[in-house]
Amino acid sequence: MNRFLALAGPWLMAFILAGCAAGAVRAPDATADNGPLTIARQGSFFVGGRDVKSDDLSLLPAYAPGGTISVEQMYVHYQVPVDARRAPLVFIHGCCLTGKTWETTPDGRMGWDEFFVRRGFPTYVIDQASRGRSAADPSGIVAVKGGRAPADKLPQVFGAAQEGAWAIFRFGPQYPEVFPGMQFPLEAQAEFWKQMVPDWLNALPTPNPTVPALSQLAQKLGGAVLVSHSQSGIYPFQTASLDRRGIAGIVAVEPGACPAADSDMKPFAGLPILVLWGDFVPLSPRWAPRLKMCSDFVAAANRAGAKAEMVMLADVGLPGASHMLMQDKHSLKIAAWLAGWIDGHVARQ
Amino acid sequence: MNRFLALAGPWLMAFILAGCAAGAVRAPDATADNGPLTIARQGSFFVGGRDVKSDDLSLLPAYAPGGTISVEQMYVHYQVPVDARRAPLVFIHGCCLTGKTWETTPDGRMGWDEFFVRRGFPTYVIDQASRGRSAADPSGIVAVKGGRAPADKLPQVFGAAQEGAWAIFRFGPQYPEVFPGMQFPLEAQAEFWKQMVPDWLNALPTPNPTVPALSQLAQKLGGAVLVSHSQSGIYPFQTASLDRRGIAGIVAVEPGACPAADSDMKPFAGLPILVLWGDFVPLSPRWAPRLKMCSDFVAAANRAGAKAEMVMLADVGLPGASHMLMQDKHSLKIAAWLAGWIDGHVARQ
Repeated sequence: MNRFLALAGPWLMAFILAGCAAGAVRAPDATADNGPLTIARQGSFFVGGRDVKSDDLSLLPAYAPGGTISVEQMYVHYQVPVDARRAPLVFIHGCCLTGKTWETTPDGRMGWDEFFVRRGFPTYVIDQASRGRSAADPSGIVAVKGGRAPADKLPQVFGAAQEGAWAIFRFGPQYPEVFPGMQFPLEAQAEFWKQMVPDWLNALPTPNPTVPALSQLAQKLGGAVLVSHSQSGIYPFQTASLDRRGIAGIVAVEPGACPAADSDMKPFAGLPILVLWGDFVPLSPRWAPRLKMCSDFVAAANRAGAKAEMVMLADVGLPGASHMLMQDKHSLKIAAWLAGWIDGHVARQ
Repeated sequence: MNRFLALAGPWLMAFILAGCAAGAVRAPDATADNGPLTIARQGSFFVGGRDVKSDDLSLLPAYAPGGTISVEQMYVHYQVPVDARRAPLVFIHGCCLTGKTWETTPDGRMGWDEFFVRRGFPTYVIDQASRGRSAADPSGIVAVKGGRAPADKLPQVFGAAQEGAWAIFRFGPQYPEVFPGMQFPLEAQAEFWKQMVPDWLNALPTPNPTVPALSQLAQKLGGAVLVSHSQSGIYPFQTASLDRRGIAGIVAVEPGACPAADSDMKPFAGLPILVLWGDFVPLSPRWAPRLKMCSDFVAAANRAGAKAEMVMLADVGLPGASHMLMQDKHSLKIAAWLAGWIDGHVARQ
C-alpha cells in the first residue's frame, strides 16, 4: 500500500460506508428515483365492514329483491418496499375523492404513494367507507325508487361542482381566477376533475366508519403514521381518541377540522403530530378559520404533552402550494420535505 | 480443455442459453415467483369521460347546488414489467364488483394483476364507468331528495345480495349448498362479499360508456388483449365492433353474453378469441344458456375468419372452477394456463 492509500484508506472506507448508508436510507432532499421499482409485496384487502339485511336491494328481475350485503368496509391497497425500515404510512383522501388522490398526478407525474415506497416507507392507500372501492349501501335509493319509502329517506349524497371546488382547492380566490404562483398543474385540470366522485359522507353514522377501520388497520400494522387530507383531517385524531394503539404519528395535510382546543387532549400525549398547510390559506374565507382552529389545537395538544407542530410550506421554502399539494408541480419536493419530517419525528420500525 | 469439456461445452452453452431464454420468457407452467417484484413503471389515469352541467349536485350549504362535473370516465391502474415483451392485458371486472376482482384473493393470495406482471405482461386494471373510482352522477338522487324530480327519475341502482349471488357465482346450486370439489375459498367468503358494490350499469346509456373508453385505451396501448369477466363479457366484442384498432385479442372469462351468432361477424375476422369457462356450468340454469350462446358465437365467428376457441377448464386438467375463477384456490394454475394460451395465440409486442 503506498502512502496515499495508507492515508486515504480509512477516509475512503468511511466515505464508502457513508455512501452505503445514504443509499439505504436516502437523504430527505434527494430527488426521486425514476428507475425500476422493486417492492417486497403488494396487494389489497378490506378492513371493517358489517353485514346488513335489506329488502330493498334490487328492482330488477335478474337480481333478488333482498338479502344480505356487507357495508362500511374500507378498501386498502398496499405496497411494501424491500428492507422497509420506516413506519408504514396510511394515506386517507379527502372530500369527493378516492385513493386515486395519492397516485399519478393529473399531469402524469409520480404520486406520493410510489414516492414514499421508493423512500422505504410501506404505503397503505385507502378508499373511505362508501366511496370508491368501498361499497355504499344502495337500499335507500332502491326503496324510494320502488315506492316503499318517501324521498327524504334517500341518502344525503352530493357532488362537488368544478366551479365551486376551484376555491375550495385554492386554485384561486374564485373560478376561474388563479392565485399568482399557484403550483397546481391547471393545464391538466380535466384529468383532475375526473378524480372526483359523489360523496356519501353525510349518509353515514358518526363517527364515520372509516375511523374504527383506521384503528383496526393501525393496530394490524403495529405503528403507522396516519396521513389525512382535507375532509378526512379529523379522522386520525378521532382514531387516536378511540384507541391509541398502533398510531405512531399523525400528519394532517390541510385538515378540514382539528379537535377543539377545549376537548380532551390526553389521547395526544407523546404523539408526533404535523399539521401541514399550503399557500394562500389566510386569503381563503373557507380555510383561514380552519388554520386558526388547528393553531389553537396544536398549542393545546402540546400543553398536554403532544409533540405537535404546524408548518406552512411557504415558510420552509416551498411556496405556491394549493390545497391539492400532493399533486402540485412541486409535489415531490413537498413529499421529500415530509419524509424528512417523519424521519426526524417518528421512531423507525 | 479436456475431452469431457470439449464434448459437453456446446451442450452446456446451449443449456445455459436455453436457461437464459426461459428466464426471460418464463415457461407457461412455471409456478409464480414469490420473491420481490421489479416493475418498470406503475400508476393510474382516466380514459373517456365528459363534462355535464347539473342543477342538482348538492343540498348541503357547504357545496354549490349546481355546476359542472365529469361523468362516464374510466379509472385505469397499470403496472408495466421490466423488459415487457408480451401484449398488454386490460382486466375488466364484472357485475357488482370493481377492479379489486383481479387483486389479492379473499384468502390473501396473489391476484392475477400481479401474476401476469410477473410473467412479463403489462397489466391495466379498470373500474367500469360509474363504479369504484370511476365517478357516478349523483344528480338523480339529489334532484329527487330535493323534491325537484319524481322518484322514478332515480338511477336504476341495485345491490346483489349474498344469498342470490351464491348461485350466480356457482359456489353451489343454491345458497348455502356447495358443488362437490368447487375451488372458491369459501372460508374467506366474508372478505369476498366486501368486494361487492352497488351497480349503476342500468343507469347508463347504451353502449355502456366503458366500451368507447376501452377502445380509447386499446388504441393508446397499441395492441392489447381485452380480458372481460361475467357482466362485462360483451364489452370487448362491442369494442371490436366499434373499432378494431388496438385490439390484439379477446379473452372472455365466463361471459354474461356473447354476440348473437346471426350478428355481424366481420369485426372478428383474424382476431384471437378465447371464451373460458369454469366448472358446473351445465348445472346452472343461469349459465347453461350462455354457454350455448357463446358456443354458437364461436362457430359463427370462425366461419367469418376469426380464431375463436371455447375452453372448459375441466377439459384442460383444471376442474372445480367457480364463476370467480380468478380467485379460486387454483387461480394461479388457471392464470398460468391462460398465459400459455395467450403466448400461443396472440403476437408478441
